[in-house]
Amino acid sequence: MIAVHLENGRVSLRCRPRPRRPAGFALIRLLCAGICDTDLELRRGYYSFRGTPGHEFVGEVVTADNSKLPGRRVVGEINLSCGACEWCRRGLGRHCSRRKVLGIVGQPGVFAEYFVLPEKNLHVVPESIPTEHGVFIEPLAAACEILEQVRIPRGASVAVLGDGKLGLLAAQVLQLHGADVCLFGHHKKKLQIAKSVGVKVQISFGETPAAAYDWVVEATGSAQGLKEAITMTRPRGTVVMKSTVHGLVPVDTAQAVVHEISLVGSRCGRFEPALRLLRTGAVQVAEMIHARVPLAEAPRAFELAAANGALKVLIVR
Amino acid sequence: MIAVHLENGRVSLRCRPRPRRPAGFALIRLLCAGICDTDLELRRGYYSFRGTPGHEFVGEVVTADNSKLPGRRVVGEINLSCGACEWCRRGLGRHCSRRKVLGIVGQPGVFAEYFVLPEKNLHVVPESIPTEHGVFIEPLAAACEILEQVRIPRGASVAVLGDGKLGLLAAQVLQLHGADVCLFGHHKKKLQIAKSVGVKVQISFGETPAAAYDWVVEATGSAQGLKEAITMTRPRGTVVMKSTVHGLVPVDTAQAVVHEISLVGSRCGRFEPALRLLRTGAVQVAEMIHARVPLAEAPRAFELAAANGALKVLIVR
Repeated sequence: MIAVHLENGRVSLRCRPRPRRPAGFALIRLLCAGICDTDLELRRGYYSFRGTPGHEFVGEVVTADNSKLPGRRVVGEINLSCGACEWCRRGLGRHCSRRKVLGIVGQPGVFAEYFVLPEKNLHVVPESIPTEHGVFIEPLAAACEILEQVRIPRGASVAVLGDGKLGLLAAQVLQLHGADVCLFGHHKKKLQIAKSVGVKVQISFGETPAAAYDWVVEATGSAQGLKEAITMTRPRGTVVMKSTVHGLVPVDTAQAVVHEISLVGSRCGRFEPALRLLRTGAVQVAEMIHARVPLAEAPRAFELAAANGALKVLIVR
Repeated sequence: MIAVHLENGRVSLRCRPRPRRPAGFALIRLLCAGICDTDLELRRGYYSFRGTPGHEFVGEVVTADNSKLPGRRVVGEINLSCGACEWCRRGLGRHCSRRKVLGIVGQPGVFAEYFVLPEKNLHVVPESIPTEHGVFIEPLAAACEILEQVRIPRGASVAVLGDGKLGLLAAQVLQLHGADVCLFGHHKKKLQIAKSVGVKVQISFGETPAAAYDWVVEATGSAQGLKEAITMTRPRGTVVMKSTVHGLVPVDTAQAVVHEISLVGSRCGRFEPALRLLRTGAVQVAEMIHARVPLAEAPRAFELAAANGALKVLIVR
């Protein structure tokens, strides 16, 4: 089968044997996958990654222990947890210290014709969700995670910084939650996507308002974003940190201390809330698709995804 | 009267007229004051300070609108808030954007024979609290503030980083709250103060345990402390940031995001809980007094306070 191979920053295609299915795992045929900023970070050397990347997908189950799965369209949670430790028992296998992470740590990813994933990680995709939209479930779950971690009152003013994929999803999720969201970004066209579902938008070039929000979501993906987010936050307010910036980020911690601001790190989320949102069609994802590229042209897909201002690049069969 | 003057990093003594007492203010005669790390920061140029510093004190009221105050020993909250804004109405005048701060911003401090402060800021010191101990109420309130901001369960393991004045007070406050505290520091003699009241202590030289605590209080006063604190914190755990480090601090935000750690800025606190704790004698402060220096020798007091490893230097009449 064809599989993408990433090594030393180079994306290539390889011919590989179809993976064996261990007990408890499903063998899945890729239908559609998404390139995420983390994949681009892997290409830059993050985690010293070498192998097949990819973790946003919709696939069709080929074989599985569970006889109801074959033939079904599925999405999958990306953390392969041990199932036995304190974190797993608390339902937080996403923090299991022995976890593997699909296409990121210790588990070959989905940019391949076939891949395997534990059946317990899978969720059947409802008929009403088109395959291309299902690819957004993983990042949408990461956006929903914000509401699992902090209690944002309905009606509260929330600023979301960054009009990239995660910022657009977070802005929509929080708006649907009932918050009064303003999305700050640099790209008029991207901001329009959030605007079309009722989010306020503002083109920002370093002129964000100071001490104006009790809630700020930092999703710029840049080292500068956090500084701006802290400045925008009111005393006793909260910054949700969504950007995983490689290396050390310079932070004005004195400002956070003096204003007693909380900075809350936020990563992956459960898939259930994301599936509910996608099923209702309330979240706009179709406009976020930048390009569709066949798996056999994956290197070109990475180039497109890495281009400045690109939204979601899909890898299709 | 004699007043300390700080300008361009130089501490000197000046002869000044006794301050006038505005309506609503008390005229206070200094009994005892403490030099805090913030005073040392002011000497280094923080806030471009010029004037009389000092904000930790016990004084005797000379004149006041309230006829019950003259002759009483008092301590005073350091934020002079407007009383009218949203923060003041919420009882959070400490965050009033129009506030002056005693000896720090816009209000002459207590390193002088006499000074004035709004009567609403004052708390009468109970007879059972010696004057020298009363000087610790302000920093003790800052330690108590942690429990106003985060809910640390009784019995929870808490690491406090830094055996300076604030670290010693925070460790004691959290231990008395019912947490199982371990204080990490570099000075055996200082750690002994916390140990004497039941806090576990550990001499640390860069060998703190990784991902070991749900709660970590960073009170090292150094830029390196926060990095260490994040490393020590378990997934979904909380770091309370107590150090106001001048300038930008390099932070591994990706670690905080991946482990979904919260970083909570924490500053001044209400005086009531601190007064209650000091009255019971449960908090050990006597051993934290490093030296007593007369007001007329204040420059020497600053030198002593700035020396490596110094605990509280008191300025006395």
